[in-house]
Amino acid sequence: MSLTASVSERADAVRAAAPLVHCITNYVTVESCANAVLAAGASPIMSDEPDDVDDITSICGALVLNIGTLNKQTIAGMKVAGAKAAELGHPIVLDPVGAGASKLRTATACELLDTLPVALVRGNMSEIKALAGNAAATQGVDVNPSDAVCDEDDIAEAAVFARDFAAKAGCVVAITGPIDIVADATRAFAVRNGSPLQGRITGSGCMLSALCGAYAACAGDAMLEAALAAVVHMGAAGQEAEARMGDADGTGSYHTYLMDAISRATGASLAEAAAVAEVA
Amino acid sequence: MSLTASVSERADAVRAAAPLVHCITNYVTVESCANAVLAAGASPIMSDEPDDVDDITSICGALVLNIGTLNKQTIAGMKVAGAKAAELGHPIVLDPVGAGASKLRTATACELLDTLPVALVRGNMSEIKALAGNAAATQGVDVNPSDAVCDEDDIAEAAVFARDFAAKAGCVVAITGPIDIVADATRAFAVRNGSPLQGRITGSGCMLSALCGAYAACAGDAMLEAALAAVVHMGAAGQEAEARMGDADGTGSYHTYLMDAISRATGASLAEAAAVAEVA
Amino acid sequence: MSLTASVSERADAVRAAAPLVHCITNYVTVESCANAVLAAGASPIMSDEPDDVDDITSICGALVLNIGTLNKQTIAGMKVAGAKAAELGHPIVLDPVGAGASKLRTATACELLDTLPVALVRGNMSEIKALAGNAAATQGVDVNPSDAVCDEDDIAEAAVFARDFAAKAGCVVAITGPIDIVADATRAFAVRNGSPLQGRITGSGCMLSALCGAYAACAGDAMLEAALAAVVHMGAAGQEAEARMGDADGTGSYHTYLMDAISRATGASLAEAAAVAEVA
Repeated sequence: MSLTASVSERADAVRAAAPLVHCITNYVTVESCANAVLAAGASPIMSDEPDDVDDITSICGALVLNIGTLNKQTIAGMKVAGAKAAELGHPIVLDPVGAGASKLRTATACELLDTLPVALVRGNMSEIKALAGNAAATQGVDVNPSDAVCDEDDIAEAAVFARDFAAKAGCVVAITGPIDIVADATRAFAVRNGSPLQGRITGSGCMLSALCGAYAACAGDAMLEAALAAVVHMGAAGQEAEARMGDADGTGSYHTYLMDAISRATGASLAEAAAVAEVA
Repeated sequence: MSLTASVSERADAVRAAAPLVHCITNYVTVESCANAVLAAGASPIMSDEPDDVDDITSICGALVLNIGTLNKQTIAGMKVAGAKAAELGHPIVLDPVGAGASKLRTATACELLDTLPVALVRGNMSEIKALAGNAAATQGVDVNPSDAVCDEDDIAEAAVFARDFAAKAGCVVAITGPIDIVADATRAFAVRNGSPLQGRITGSGCMLSALCGAYAACAGDAMLEAALAAVVHMGAAGQEAEARMGDADGTGSYHTYLMDAISRATGASLAEAAAVAEVA
Repeated sequence: MSLTASVSERADAVRAAAPLVHCITNYVTVESCANAVLAAGASPIMSDEPDDVDDITSICGALVLNIGTLNKQTIAGMKVAGAKAAELGHPIVLDPVGAGASKLRTATACELLDTLPVALVRGNMSEIKALAGNAAATQGVDVNPSDAVCDEDDIAEAAVFARDFAAKAGCVVAITGPIDIVADATRAFAVRNGSPLQGRITGSGCMLSALCGAYAACAGDAMLEAALAAVVHMGAAGQEAEARMGDADGTGSYHTYLMDAISRATGASLAEAAAVAEVA
C-alpha cells in the first residue's frame, strides 16, 4: 500500500471504530486534547486517580501518558494505568513533555519508558534526546532551536537517531518540529506538513499525542503507519488552519481553525495533503 | 404559568440575581463551565481544597459537584462542601460523570446522592441507570447508544424511569441526550432542543450541569422548572450554534458559537425556542 | 522617556527576549494563561509539583503565583518555587485570586507576600484590600462593586491606597477594574484601557497576571513600567476585541478575539492605544 493510501485508511479506521482513549494528561491543554480526540472521531476519557484508572483503562482501546504537569499522584496513576494497559495489550503512547527540563520529568519519562511496553513516543527533539540519555538542553517545554529538524541537512541525521532510539526503546517514535520524523527500528519518514503557527499556541504537541492515542487504538500491528497518519492529520490541519487566517485573526482564531480542521479531515483529505517521504 | 413563560422567567431571574455558583468540577472542561456560568449571567467560583470549600460555598447560592476527574482530594472537598451547603440550605447539583464506567465513579456518585440532600442530578441515561442500580454499560463518559432516548418510542419508558428515579432519590433529574427528559417524582417533560454537534465537543454535559447550578441558585421551590429552563437554555444554544456553522467550520467554531449562544440567550429568546412537552 | 514610549519599549522587549515564564496557576484558566503568554511572545511552563518546581523555575525568567484553585500541594509548590526564584533574583508576580473570599485564600496570599520578595501584585480592588488587612468583602473571585474604581472621583483615593499598599508591601501593585491603577510606593498611574466584556469571560485577570510575568522577566529595575505596559497590553486587546464583535457574537467569540488581539499587539500599536495618566 502507498504511504498516502495508508494514511487515508488509518484516518478512516479511527472514525469507523470510534475508540475510547484513556488520557492521563496535563491540566493545561486537557480540554484541547479531549476535543482533538473527539474531532478525530474517537472518544476521550480523562482519569488519573490511582483507584479509578484500572477500571477506566480497561474499557478503553489505548492509553496516553503525558507528563506536562506531572505530580506524585498522577505519576502513581500513570503506573497503575500503564500496568493494566500492558496486561490487556492496549497500546501506550508516551508524551515526555519537558523531559530534559527537570530531573523529575526526565526520570519519570525514562521510568515509564523502561517499565511499560510503550508503543509510541511523541515529543520534540530535545525531549527525545533527553530520553536517549544525550546531553539535552530542553527549553522548558519547547525544543531547543539547535535541536530542531528544520531543513534537508538535518533530516538524514535525525532519521538515524530516530531509528536508533526506536530500536533501543522498542517502540515507534514521532519527533515533531518544523519537519517531523516518524520511525521504528528499521524505517524512518519525514513529514513536511504543519505550520509555524502551531508553535504559537499551547497544546499542539499534546493534541497530537492524544490523536496518536486514537490512532494507536486502531493500529493493530501497524503502529508506524498509525503514528505517521496521526502526524499527517495534525500537520495537515495546521496548514489548513493557517490558510484560513484573516486580517484581524491571531492565535485565538488559529486555535479554533486548527480544531475545525482536525474535525473536518477525512482519509481522502489527508491522503491529498500528506507530504511524507521515507528517509534512507 | 405556561411552560415557556416559566422558562423565560427562570432565565431572566438568573441574569437579574447573578448568583455565585460554587463548582467542584473536572479539570477537563472547567474553563468552559466557568464561561457557561458567566454566559448565563451568574458568577462561578471553583474550589476543591477541603480547607477552602467551607468558606467558599458559604458565600455562594448553589453547589455543583461533577465527578469527571474525581480524585481522593476532590472527593473529600465535595463532602465538606456538600455538608456545608446542606447546612445552609443551598441547592446541590450532582453530575455523575462516568458513573457505570468505574467502581469508584459509581460508588462516589451513589454516596454523594445518598448522604447529601441533592436537589438535581444531571447526567446521560447510562449514568443515571448506574445510579439507579441498573445493570449499566456506560461507555466511558458517553451514553451507551442502547440507553439513549432518541425517538418517540423511548420517551414514555424513559419518563417512567425518570419519575421513579426522582421519587427514590428525592430530587429532580435531568437525563440529557438526543431527547432530554426532566422529571421530579410526579411529572416528566421531554425537551426536543439541542444539536448532535453538542456530542462532538467535550463539556456539553458539564456546561449544562454548571448552568443547572446557576438556575438552581434562583429556583426557590421550583427546582423542576429551573432544571427545565437550564436544559432548554443549553439545547436552544446548541441549535443556534449549529445554524451558524459555515463551510469551513468544524468543532472548534461550534464550541465558540455555542458559548456565544449561551451568552446571548434571554428569557424571551428561550421561550420562543423551547420545545418542551409533558409526558404522561 | 514618555509613558507611551515606555509601553512600546517594554512590549517589544518581551517579543525580543521571549522569556520563559514559570506559572503555578489555577486549573480553570490555565490554558488561556499559557496562550496569553505565548501571544505576548514569551513561553510559559506550568509546574506545581514541589519536587519539580525547583528545576523548572531555575530555567525561567519569572515566576507567577496564582491562587485561584489553591490546594495544599500547589501551596507547597508555590513556596518551594518562590524560595528558588528569590534565591536566583527572578521576579515573582502574585495574583491573590479570591483573597477576602475565604480564610485560606487570604492567609495564603498574605503569607506569600510576607515571606517572598514579590515584585508585583495583580488583583482586583477587593482582593488587594483583603491583602492590606482592610475589611474586604470580595464577591467570590469578583470585585465587590463598592470597591471598583469606576470614575474620576474614585481615582485619587485609589491611587493613595495603591501607593500606600506598594510602600508597605515593598512591591509594585496593579489593581485592575473599570479603571486600572498601577503604582509603586511613590508614583501611581490610571489606565483607561479595557472593555466591560473582559468581565464576562473567565480568566481576564489571570491572563493579565500571566502577561505580567512575561513583562516582569524583562523588566530589570523598571518593574513599574513593566506592570504598566502589561496592563495596557491586556486593556488595549480588550478594546480591540470588543470593536470586532459582530451581530451573532457573544462571549465565546470575545474570548477568541481577545487572544487574537493580545497576539497581534506590537510596541507601536500599544503606544498608540495606551490611555495612561499619572495620578498626583
